[in-house]
Amino acid sequence: MSGLTLTDARLATLDGPGYGIVDGWLRIEDGRISALGAGAGPGDGASESLGGRLVTPGMIDCHTHLVHGGERAREFEMRLEGASYEDIARAGGGILSTVTATRSASEDELVAQALPRLDALLAEGACTVEVKSGYGLTIDHELKMLRAARRLAAERPVRIVTTWLAAHATPPEYKGRDDAYLDEVAIPGLRAAHAEGLVDAVDGFCEGIAFSTAQMARLFDVAAELGLPVKLHAEQLSHMGGSELIAARGGLSADHVEYATAADARLLAAAGSVATLLPGAFYTLRETQMPPVAAFREAGTVMALATDANPGTSPLTSLLLTMNMGATLFRLTPEECLRGVTLNAARALGLADCGRLAPGLRADLAVWDARAPAELTYRIGFNPLYRRYFEGRPC
Amino acid sequence: MSGLTLTDARLATLDGPGYGIVDGWLRIEDGRISALGAGAGPGDGASESLGGRLVTPGMIDCHTHLVHGGERAREFEMRLEGASYEDIARAGGGILSTVTATRSASEDELVAQALPRLDALLAEGACTVEVKSGYGLTIDHELKMLRAARRLAAERPVRIVTTWLAAHATPPEYKGRDDAYLDEVAIPGLRAAHAEGLVDAVDGFCEGIAFSTAQMARLFDVAAELGLPVKLHAEQLSHMGGSELIAARGGLSADHVEYATAADARLLAAAGSVATLLPGAFYTLRETQMPPVAAFREAGTVMALATDANPGTSPLTSLLLTMNMGATLFRLTPEECLRGVTLNAARALGLADCGRLAPGLRADLAVWDARAPAELTYRIGFNPLYRRYFEGRPC
Ligand SMILES: [Zn+2]
Ligand SMILES: [Zn+2]
Repeated sequence: MSGLTLTDARLATLDGPGYGIVDGWLRIEDGRISALGAGAGPGDGASESLGGRLVTPGMIDCHTHLVHGGERAREFEMRLEGASYEDIARAGGGILSTVTATRSASEDELVAQALPRLDALLAEGACTVEVKSGYGLTIDHELKMLRAARRLAAERPVRIVTTWLAAHATPPEYKGRDDAYLDEVAIPGLRAAHAEGLVDAVDGFCEGIAFSTAQMARLFDVAAELGLPVKLHAEQLSHMGGSELIAARGGLSADHVEYATAADARLLAAAGSVATLLPGAFYTLRETQMPPVAAFREAGTVMALATDANPGTSPLTSLLLTMNMGATLFRLTPEECLRGVTLNAARALGLADCGRLAPGLRADLAVWDARAPAELTYRIGFNPLYRRYFEGRPC
Repeated sequence: MSGLTLTDARLATLDGPGYGIVDGWLRIEDGRISALGAGAGPGDGASESLGGRLVTPGMIDCHTHLVHGGERAREFEMRLEGASYEDIARAGGGILSTVTATRSASEDELVAQALPRLDALLAEGACTVEVKSGYGLTIDHELKMLRAARRLAAERPVRIVTTWLAAHATPPEYKGRDDAYLDEVAIPGLRAAHAEGLVDAVDGFCEGIAFSTAQMARLFDVAAELGLPVKLHAEQLSHMGGSELIAARGGLSADHVEYATAADARLLAAAGSVATLLPGAFYTLRETQMPPVAAFREAGTVMALATDANPGTSPLTSLLLTMNMGATLFRLTPEECLRGVTLNAARALGLADCGRLAPGLRADLAVWDARAPAELTYRIGFNPLYRRYFEGRPC
């Protein structure tokens, strides 16, 4: 009999209420968890002791803009030196600088630039990472971004989930013509990307400075026609109704949601849509409007946590730090933080085969030099990862 | 001729105004920087190309509580689950839980527990780390802490600077008898530690909940008698006059200083004392009172940045993240952040032989996969260290 049994493990299964701690063993066969239990475990077959270490589901980052050209350190520096947004725009800064850098990068270059950022996530136990398009803003450049994202899964032991986010911003050549951009780029590009097998979900930026709910609804109609799930950057800077739209469409998640209301929380909960909190952007932008965590708890809205890794508003590539920020800034409990980057993040991606430890699920595991799950959230800038298993293979 | 020349390096020398960028070479001999300059460099002797990478002075963490027993993840979790401070105290939490764990740990155990935290700092290019006592609160246990701190420098390639912080808190056995604690423990312990060569500087916690300036002045009299420089945890939660005391004694630094005034800034500047900012504690405690950065700039007060790594109010072991917090939370420029963890941190420790790149100084270097120094501050939870040199040796 092939396979491997990990023994003397403290399993945080997240299967049921609480952490679901089981002090025992976990058996891996054919890349899946075949069994687990308390105590010493079955004596047959290959086994390895984890010395009492904590095992959690492999981490899942369910909202990233990991593939993009360039970085924006100079713009960050200019702002701290007192430059105005106009100064920065004149110096070529802002999201358009990332669009320019992404357009001028080859697919190979996008992969090469994304890999160190991906490696930072993997070094902290990530096994699944979502990656969005949204800095190409032409059909070809958006497709290039998603091809680069798919290639990451060939370069590293990781599962990549892709999202079409052409409705991220309107490029200069369509300035003032948002609907034409949707009709000529975002929608036909989605069809092309879908045909090429590049898209797992459809996203948009629903905000006063970006697209309206009516525009997003048009895009979502095409997503529905193609059988693709939807999600939205919603209620980040104002209340625009994006959460309500997501709930109405049975979408995967509404993301950011600082300005969501208690009514939104109930709608999301009823629809089974996840509220994905992104504390890195809240921190970087020094926002003061907290997401309605109490309302989410009361409504039973599922909360995920993600890095929002992007070069402008969240140059963050650490899920452990995201957990600490979720606790420190949003007052999530360490258990909510752990669920947010595992089970609930899986749900935000529409994945049922990962995010907790149970027989039949993928053997994507993170093993930590820790005993209590809260240690993962408590520390700041410290990585206690001992080993990562991806599809049952140590890496 | 022995030694090594690093070529094709982008040196951020911090020698003079700005970053002091020199695109060129740096020569190491006998653990020191023997020469540096622009261009291709001298052709003789061993050389190694750094491929255009950024080189900064080795990082310096000038304020840590790295040596201590235990951690406080459970207390962190209880608080987020809604427990009151009374609940936590009843459950054995708070600083006294760290005192209890530190007292019950052996010197070997303290070293073993500190090493992973130290390794996290070294992995980001730290070459010098200050470590305080302050959780033993008896003469023997305080000495044990500093012996453990000294041993860290034998266990790893790092320079350790020690600080006597018995005046951190009054232990339960001296409750209500602060002066007796100073007379019977903090002062005689300092003499004993100094006699054993364990102390490089003297510190205290000057706060309404801890010691008064008058009490600190008594301790500082003994420090002066022993020829030891002084520093203080000052103006963190209220304005107590600690900065003024430090300036009056020509101390190394006043640390935290959120409640320092413009007058304090001028006194510190005139005395040549450093204001050490600790954004990790500000972040963890969700403080809102910002340190008077504009007043420090106007007065010409030298600003350092440090982790304050400690198990209660700043479980932070990343100087890169400290830099980002310095910029994001305190609006320091990236240049101020880099100086804060190099040149100005050296000054806060009274060290003139490190913190910038210049002939004659220690060859403590950090080499980064980056081109612009601002990249070190801009990114969050990402470590671009390529290599560290300690006393001229790659490690
Ligand atoms: Zn986003
Ligand atoms: Zn401190």
